[in-house]
Formats: sequence, C-alpha cells, structure tokens
Amino acid sequence: MSAPSPLITLTTDFGEGSSYVAAMKGAILRVCPAARILDLSHSIAPQNLIATAYFLVDALRYYRPRSIHVVVVDPGVGTARDLLCVQWNDQVVLAPDNGCWTILEPLAQSPVRVFRLTKDEFWQSPVSPTFHGRDILAPAAGHIGNGVSPIDLGVRTEKWVRLPLPEPVRSPGCIRGEVVVVDRFGNLISNISPGAGELVRGVHVGTQATPRFVRTYGDAEPGDLVALIGSGGRVEVAVVNGSAAARLGLGIGDSIEIAVG
Amino acid sequence: MSAPSPLITLTTDFGEGSSYVAAMKGAILRVCPAARILDLSHSIAPQNLIATAYFLVDALRYYRPRSIHVVVVDPGVGTARDLLCVQWNDQVVLAPDNGCWTILEPLAQSPVRVFRLTKDEFWQSPVSPTFHGRDILAPAAGHIGNGVSPIDLGVRTEKWVRLPLPEPVRSPGCIRGEVVVVDRFGNLISNISPGAGELVRGVHVGTQATPRFVRTYGDAEPGDLVALIGSGGRVEVAVVNGSAAARLGLGIGDSIEIAVG
Amino acid sequence: MSAPSPLITLTTDFGEGSSYVAAMKGAILRVCPAARILDLSHSIAPQNLIATAYFLVDALRYYRPRSIHVVVVDPGVGTARDLLCVQWNDQVVLAPDNGCWTILEPLAQSPVRVFRLTKDEFWQSPVSPTFHGRDILAPAAGHIGNGVSPIDLGVRTEKWVRLPLPEPVRSPGCIRGEVVVVDRFGNLISNISPGAGELVRGVHVGTQATPRFVRTYGDAEPGDLVALIGSGGRVEVAVVNGSAAARLGLGIGDSIEIAVG
Repeated sequence: MSAPSPLITLTTDFGEGSSYVAAMKGAILRVCPAARILDLSHSIAPQNLIATAYFLVDALRYYRPRSIHVVVVDPGVGTARDLLCVQWNDQVVLAPDNGCWTILEPLAQSPVRVFRLTKDEFWQSPVSPTFHGRDILAPAAGHIGNGVSPIDLGVRTEKWVRLPLPEPVRSPGCIRGEVVVVDRFGNLISNISPGAGELVRGVHVGTQATPRFVRTYGDAEPGDLVALIGSGGRVEVAVVNGSAAARLGLGIGDSIEIAVG
Repeated sequence: MSAPSPLITLTTDFGEGSSYVAAMKGAILRVCPAARILDLSHSIAPQNLIATAYFLVDALRYYRPRSIHVVVVDPGVGTARDLLCVQWNDQVVLAPDNGCWTILEPLAQSPVRVFRLTKDEFWQSPVSPTFHGRDILAPAAGHIGNGVSPIDLGVRTEKWVRLPLPEPVRSPGCIRGEVVVVDRFGNLISNISPGAGELVRGVHVGTQATPRFVRTYGDAEPGDLVALIGSGGRVEVAVVNGSAAARLGLGIGDSIEIAVG
Repeated sequence: MSAPSPLITLTTDFGEGSSYVAAMKGAILRVCPAARILDLSHSIAPQNLIATAYFLVDALRYYRPRSIHVVVVDPGVGTARDLLCVQWNDQVVLAPDNGCWTILEPLAQSPVRVFRLTKDEFWQSPVSPTFHGRDILAPAAGHIGNGVSPIDLGVRTEKWVRLPLPEPVRSPGCIRGEVVVVDRFGNLISNISPGAGELVRGVHVGTQATPRFVRTYGDAEPGDLVALIGSGGRVEVAVVNGSAAARLGLGIGDSIEIAVG
C-alpha cells in the first residue's frame, strides 16, 4: 500500500465559511495537489491566543506523525513578527511567532526544532501585507506536504515568543485556577490538572456553588451541578444535560478552586 | 484503479469548530492514516436525539456502500449504555445505543446487523469517562476503515434502544403531524410523508395560516406562503425567498395538519 | 505518482452543518467514490447572489486547474432557470444560471465555455423539484470528476444571466463605492479596486470618519481606525484588533469614498 496522501489541517479565527479559509485551501492545493485538507476550527475567538493555545493542546496530541498543522490566529499580521515552522513530536506546526503553539512544548517527547520562514521563493508572489496565512503559510504547508524539509524553507532559530498562560496557584490543600474554555454545552473547563497524588476533595466556583465531584456525568442526575476531570485532563464544572455557564452565570476568566489532599 | 481510501463521516452536537471534533479526527487518523474524513454536521441541537434522527434519515440514504458514519450525540456518556456498530445497507453506523439511528431501520434493504463494542483492545487507553466518541468510536471507525469486521470489535446483539419519534395521526381525510426540522431558510418541515394514494388537498398550520399547496417554490411569488412535498419526501411549509418560521412564529413541535383525499 | 483524486468543492447558503450539505456530499460520492470533497462555505447569506459573487472571486482564483466547484445559492430553484457547467481557467463551476459566477469572467485567461445541463441520464432519478443541488449538480460534479466532459452533460450555450454588481463611480480625483463584504473581524470591505495609476490620498466612510490610509494593520496601533488595500485587492476600512463595523455602525451597502491622485 502506498503512503497516504499528505494531511494538512487548518485552525483559524476567520469564522466558519469564511472566504479567507477557502482561499487558503486553494493556495495549499496549488502547491500540493494531493493534499488532504482537514478543518480543525475556524471558530477560535478572534485574535485570542490563549483560546488558540487551549484548542491546540486539546486537539493536536491526538494526531499522528507527519501531520501538518497550519494555525492562523494572527493579531500581528503585517508587523515584523516572524512566521514559524515547528517540528513537534514528528508533526509540523506552521504559525505566526506569537506563542499560540508553545503550550505544546511540555508535551514534546524530544526537543522541538523551530525554523523562521525566510525563503520567499516558496511564497505566493506578491505577498499581501494583510494575509500571510494565504500567501506564506499555506504554500509553505504545501511544500512540507510535498516532502520539502523545514530547513529548506528558512533558518533554524532558538528564540521564539512564549505565550504567558494563566497558571494555577497551588497552596497547601488547595489549587486555585480559572475557567479557560467554555464548550458548546456550557461546561466550564479550567486550567487545573491535578497531579498524581492530588485527590480532589471539593470544588468551588463562583461565590457559593459547590458542585459534587464525580467521575462522569452518568454518576449524577440530569440537572445536577457536578465537577469532574474532563476529557482533556483538567477540572471542569458541568450541569448534567444542561449548561453550567448559564446556570452559574460564569465564563472565561472566572475563578475555580479545588481542595486536594 | 485502486479502491478509494476509506470514507468516514462525522455527525455530532459538539458545535462547528469544536476541539472535540478536532481530537476525534486525529484519533481516527492515528488508526487509519489513509481515511478521508467528511464533516456531516456538528450543529445538531445539543443532546437532541430526535433532531439527530431526522438529520440521519435526510443524509445517510444518499451515501454509497462502505461508507462509515460516526454519530456522537450522547446524553448518556459515562452511563452503562452500550456503544453500537450497525451494518445498514452495506454502510456502517457507529453510535451510542440511544436510538438515534433507528429511524433508518425501515429503509434497510436487508435486516440490520448490530454489534455492541466490547473489545477494548481496539480502544484508546485509558478511555476518558466523558468522551467515548474520541476514545472508543473514533478508533473503532478507523479499524473498520482498515478492513476489520464489526464482529471482531464486539458481539452481535438483537436488542437495542429504539427512539420513539412523534408519529403523525391519520384520520379519514386528514393527517395531523408536527414540525420536526426548521432549516436555515425558516422552512417548517413536518413528519408527514403522504402515501401513494394520499393526494394533498390542503394544509393548515398554526391557528389561521392556510398556505397554498404547490409543487415547488417557483410555482408561487416571492413572499407567498406555500406548502409542498420537500426534498426529504415530507410536507413542509415555506415562504418563497423568505422565512415561514419567522412569518408564522412557529417552530419544532408545532402542529401541521393536511387534508388528503 | 498517480494523478491526485478529483477535487470537488461546495459553496452554499444552506448553513454550516445542514443536512442538505450532508446529502449533497453523499450524492457526489455515489457517482465519484474517489472524490475529495472540500467545504468552501455554507454560510453565504441566504439567497444572496452578490455575496456569493464576492465570495467566489475572493476564493476561486487561488485554485488549481481541474478543480470542480459546486455552487448552490439558488433563489430560483424549481423555476425554469437553467443549471450551468462553466469552464473557467481550466476549472469547472457548476451553478444555477443566476449570474452568481459571472464576476469571474473578467479573470478568465481564455473565453469561458458554458454548458446547460440537459442530459437527465446523469441526474438522480426522480429529481426533487426543490433540491437541484443534490439531484442534478452533485451527480454532475461527480461525473466531471470521473472524467466526463461538460459537453456530454448538456449543450453549449452563448447566453447566460449576468449578475449586476454595484459598480464604483469614478469622477476626477474620487472613486465612490460601497461596502460589499463584512468579515468576521468587522472589516468593511468595499468594491473599489484602485488602478495602477490611482494612488489613494484619503478615505471617507459614513458621515465623518476619516480612517488613516496604511499599508497593513501593523502600521497603526490597536484601536486605530485605518483603511488599506485588503487581501482581495479592494479598499477596506478596519479597526486594528477591533471591529470597524461595530465602531462605525456600518455594513453592507454603506458608501465608501476614496480620494485618488
């Protein structure tokens, strides 16, 4: 059986159904006609790098080697910021140098290798000053898909922007974090990943709510307020078959505290 | 020409652009690197099994043999409900055992064969108690795509949950049903499929509206309120180039009555 | 290396996640099992042909030869309007004869060739009077993907509907146009493409706003109101890392005027 055709994924804040996405797909296929293109998301909150980071950490760890990911959340388009090609766990991430991907670094099984895209012979010509996703990242992804090596697209670098993420604060018996994702069901997903020795004794969210800690939604009744370790390994607060965000009036940035012991 | 690569479709209520969808795609491709993944919908109303059923009946009948469909609308995730692999018209449907697919049974050209997924060596390990779509159904779909037989993934069963659907009530000269789908255009689509001998004489919806029965939108003027047999074979009420839902203030669950004779 | 599998794209106003889209994908694959199907957009404003036109001109120019594009924005479905197969720059566009594609004509490197789809042996049978996208255009795209020639699907025509687009008005030193697209970021994108000799001296939008003309967003500060030549070559008004649409309270159809010299 021959090798499967190159897989190139797209993650942007352009909005589902945007012509910007459609143009990028065309630009990839012009370079790499055999590519399989996969939409990951075009619903990232506009220009929100923290949302992008949590999206990537929840998604990319499930991909196989040789996957190529193009990420365009780019509040700095047109400034002097670089564009990067990152080798991470035998996968490739192409993104602006704004730190959106650095949440993945701790998951690397070997040191990441990072390249600045500098070889403009691989770009669309002319390059639009407002759409590097289409004119630089998309063709670069196509060339990677064709077997071009990252080093041929630019130069190795040891410096890149790291995104500061809200870090949970640990004190004896307590971890205080915050809501970083609200999913479509209204689940409030925090940035708290309890460690191996940290058994969750209780969860507090907002001023009064004390959800019951369970293993899964099925351990409670529809309408119950619960907390659990979500599918991404982080503590989340949920209403079974309902919306915790609506029930509690809480959202991104709100505080979540867990008692551990 | 070699066989086309396996086709695996996704239907969920996760929302367009959800990281849950992105993770499932990765999990499928890890098992079946050559898969073509096709999004059907991620906009199913959250945890709504009836909406899922009508979506599937309107979509899957158009697919070819060997198509593999993963359906994740799963209000019971984490409970003891089973996960099923269904052979239907030479296609395969993977879904929780909640009846979302049983609307397809009457369309089967030969008896469906249903398997409970029990062989955990085909699953992601460990399995998240809140995301069986990613950790059980996605890899199972990948294995089916690779040529594994459903019987190798679990055990045959003769029992499964059947979803109760709102059934139209027939009386002499009259069929009374309800709106089960509202599409993006505001068309009110009912659960009434007139039989061969049932000529539609009139349609009533809401308290007063009496749309004119036509063959297609083009038989009336823009702005006209009409009723017709829609593309899924069921009676629908529409405003030509407008929204019947907005005009009439009606939606899912509202009554539609047709006079036949 | 063998030829890549046929690429068939979809652009509709059905809404993301619509069962109509899912059915069309199945109908394409039944005819052309090897097709790679690519979603361009299902978020076109309902029945809006001008929005469709600008979407297509911003997207299709980036596609490679042999791409096949199915466009279903079809306010006239069920009327006597024809369905067309258009050969444009070695690509194929399948669409209702409502002018949605004629914005592409000036970009043709050789005269377009247009065919009316008349050979019903290539259609789904029976054809739904309300869903020609699924029953005529989708199988036609599949046949084109399989190598069938447009002339085999119908008859050549020299007449087709041309869509009247809002044209900018040029007077000495001034071009007056209007907003034709608002993207997800709230950028107000006009129909004005300055010519080679037309240097932009100033931009006016609404009654008072005078955005500063820049080369790219990075030439101004977050929150600044700017104007620039956007990635589609047309003048747009933007708020850096913000929304010009929200700031100015403007949208599609509102006037934009530029001073040139």
